[in-house]
Parts: sequence; C-alpha cells; structure tokens
Amino acid sequence: MGRIICTGLGPGDPDLMSVRADRLVRAAQHVAFFRKKGRSGQARRMVDGLLAPSATEYAMEYPVTTELAFDSPAYIQCLARFYDEWADRLALLAQEQAQDIVVLCEGDPFFYGSFMHLYTRLQGRALVEVVPGIPGMVGCWSVTGQPMTWGDDALTVLMGTLPEDELVRHMQAADAIVVMKTGRNLPRVRRALARAGKLDQAWLVQHGTMPQQQIGRLVDTPDEVCPYFAIVLVHGQGRRPELPE
Amino acid sequence: MGRIICTGLGPGDPDLMSVRADRLVRAAQHVAFFRKKGRSGQARRMVDGLLAPSATEYAMEYPVTTELAFDSPAYIQCLARFYDEWADRLALLAQEQAQDIVVLCEGDPFFYGSFMHLYTRLQGRALVEVVPGIPGMVGCWSVTGQPMTWGDDALTVLMGTLPEDELVRHMQAADAIVVMKTGRNLPRVRRALARAGKLDQAWLVQHGTMPQQQIGRLVDTPDEVCPYFAIVLVHGQGRRPELPE
Repeated sequence: MGRIICTGLGPGDPDLMSVRADRLVRAAQHVAFFRKKGRSGQARRMVDGLLAPSATEYAMEYPVTTELAFDSPAYIQCLARFYDEWADRLALLAQEQAQDIVVLCEGDPFFYGSFMHLYTRLQGRALVEVVPGIPGMVGCWSVTGQPMTWGDDALTVLMGTLPEDELVRHMQAADAIVVMKTGRNLPRVRRALARAGKLDQAWLVQHGTMPQQQIGRLVDTPDEVCPYFAIVLVHGQGRRPELPE
Repeated sequence: MGRIICTGLGPGDPDLMSVRADRLVRAAQHVAFFRKKGRSGQARRMVDGLLAPSATEYAMEYPVTTELAFDSPAYIQCLARFYDEWADRLALLAQEQAQDIVVLCEGDPFFYGSFMHLYTRLQGRALVEVVPGIPGMVGCWSVTGQPMTWGDDALTVLMGTLPEDELVRHMQAADAIVVMKTGRNLPRVRRALARAGKLDQAWLVQHGTMPQQQIGRLVDTPDEVCPYFAIVLVHGQGRRPELPE
C-alpha cells in the first residue's frame, strides 16, 4: 500500500524547497495538486522541470472559488463534497498502485493549507505523511530585507477575510503583523491598518521569492493590483541590544 | 570581497534544510555560528557531517545567557558589544579572505534570530544575504500530526518572557497560539494558558523533528523538564467545510 505524502514546497523559489521535498518531487510517479479551474496551479508551476517525465498528474480543481460567498452553506457543502471525493480517489489510488502519491502544497501544509481537509478525511484509511515547508509569509518577509520579529515582539497572522473591527483589534494588540488572503479584501485591510495606526509601516509583497516578485510600501500600492496570495507585513520593532550613546 | 550569507537551517532535521542551504553549507569554507559557552551549539550540531573537512569554523559564544536579567542595562550593553565585535570580525574576514562566510542559524534568520543583530550592524559594510528557513515552530506543529490553522483563524506567536497579564490578553484574543522561549518561563506560560481557558488544548514540543524529539500535552508535562527552545502550541479549530449530517 502506497503512502499519501503531502509536501510543503515553500514560498515559491524551488531552491527554497526542503531537501526532502526536492527528493520526493523528483522521484514521484503520482503527483496531485490543487488548482483553480482554467489555471495551471501555483503548486504545480513551482515544480516545473523537476517532475519525472513518467509521472502521472492529478489536478484537483476547486469546484468554486469566488462565485459563492465563502461562508454560505452552498459553498461549504460544495467544497466538502470536493474534499470527500478526492480523499476517496487518493485513498483508492494509493491502494491500487502500491506506490506513493505526492501531494504538492505551496508553503507549509499545516498552515492554512487545503490539504488539511484531505488529511483529516484520510485518517485511518491511508498512510498519510506531511513534510513541512517554509511558509509563504517567511519568504515574503525575507525579501523585504528587514528582520520580522525582535526580542519579545508578539506576531499575529490574520486573514484578510476577517471583519474590519476584528482586524483592527488584533492589529492594535500585535507588534508584528502578517495579513494573508488579501486580494479583494485589500481595501478593508488597508482601512483596518489605518485605524490601528500602522498603515505607514505596512509592506505589500506579491509573489515573494518568485521571478515576478513585487515588494512595496502598502501606501504606494493601489488596491487594484493585489492578487489573492499577496501578503501584507508590518515588521516588529522590539527590544534590541544597542550600545547607549 | 566575499559575502556574508546567513542561512536558515530549519527546525532541526537536516533533511528539512532548503536545497540552497544544503548547497551553501556543504560548499562553505568559512562557517560561523552562535553558541552558549561550553556547548557545541544547536546550529552547529545540525550540520554535523555536512561541512567540508577544510572549512574554518568561527564559534560566536554569547558572553552571557541567563546570569543577568534579559532587560538589565548590563546585559543589554554586554550583548551589544558582543554583536559589535563579531560584526567587525566578519566584515574584516569577508574582505580579507575574498570568500563567502556562511553563518548558520536555526529556523529562519529573520524570525527572532540572533543574526539580525549582526545584519543591522553590517549594512553598508559588507554584502549580506539571508536565506530563509522553516521556522522551528513549523517543524514543531508538523510533528504533532495536527493542522495548525484553518479558515480565518488568527495565529499569535508569543515569547514566554512576556508578563503574565500580557500573555493572557494575547492568548484570549488568538485562535491558534505559539509560545517560544519557554524554559524557566514555563510555569508562567502554564498559568496564563489556564487563565485564558486554553491549557487543556496546549501541547509542548521539545526538539521537534530531531532524534530526541518529545511531544506531549502540556498538562501531562512537569515544569522541570522544559529546555529553553521547547515550544508550546495551541492548534486553531477554525472554519472548515464539512458536509451537514
């Protein structure tokens, strides 16, 4: 019986994949990955040129993305069926093929990753392994060229999908801030940062560590150009040992 | 003129180093790393067997660790001098040798890493590069075998050195929690989690992804056995698509 191994691929640059991920990807004979319909898929693009020519690919295409509200019963039910079906297919495949199936995942699989929905469904039905990866946010703060957290800074990671008041409350309490899932939520994220008094310190990083990477101050970036996976960062400024003048 | 390249080594397992880190470490002719006096050093241990026999090693030994209070002027001044001196030495070395110097760093260098204190001091004096790594906390939540954050969970990363009331306030507001720098602070962290109503959900992971790894519920772990780098985790339980019964 083959295993189902989900491997984090890191923030985008294939050179930032782990040694284990690199080895798994190159050796894989069965490779599955999530993608939006009509797209090549971010995770799949990250392994371009690494997959064996003989590998069989399984594109797990999200049935809906932004057509339905993310908290509507219809969306939730539709996604649940999608994960149910792919859990069944991967479990069957691992059994029939007696070969490992490698599931590709941007960033780290256990950090807001879609694979977690398969992971919980596969418990007790297949051998499942997860290989951690560098989260996208780590790649993004790395390319800003500024340390993210110092001393006893508190870092809070927020989703741009949260209500504005909740964003403000968290942003006020935190020293360093990461906001993921920005995209169409960027205007709200921007307003929340302004209300928390932190807009001037915020950066927007798009495609961090990838060739098309863009880094800028959020105040210099219009709302329109923000892809869903862009990340907003506010660096911590905590305690550091400096010689008194 | 050589570069000073600080590379994140990830959480502990050498297989979780990035492809780039692995290549840099194996090729390095000058390797620097922080360690406590009298210890071999966590970062250095992680590259055992990878370094070239011809590599020259530079152990940057912290002048003090726990003998002085972390917020005392004496401690701050002593550490500042230490970073000043090593910034000078590395800058000189990169110039004299005309070879790269690789600085080893556990986890990710920009995430509470000691190298940041050299990084700021070296700006404009040397070519400095930073290679991101998988943060220790990511390795730790990976080995618990449970996804860390779902849906719109807010994750907060806290230092065990914070005052108890601040810990409680942050813990109450967060969905998922990471506490680093536990060690002698563990009794306070435990009290704060209890006051926030989250003690029962907390895990303690020591040496995550390393051979001596220990994973357990915090309620089952006595305060005494906690090394400084143990990490406390509370997993998020956010929104997930499940089929209605």
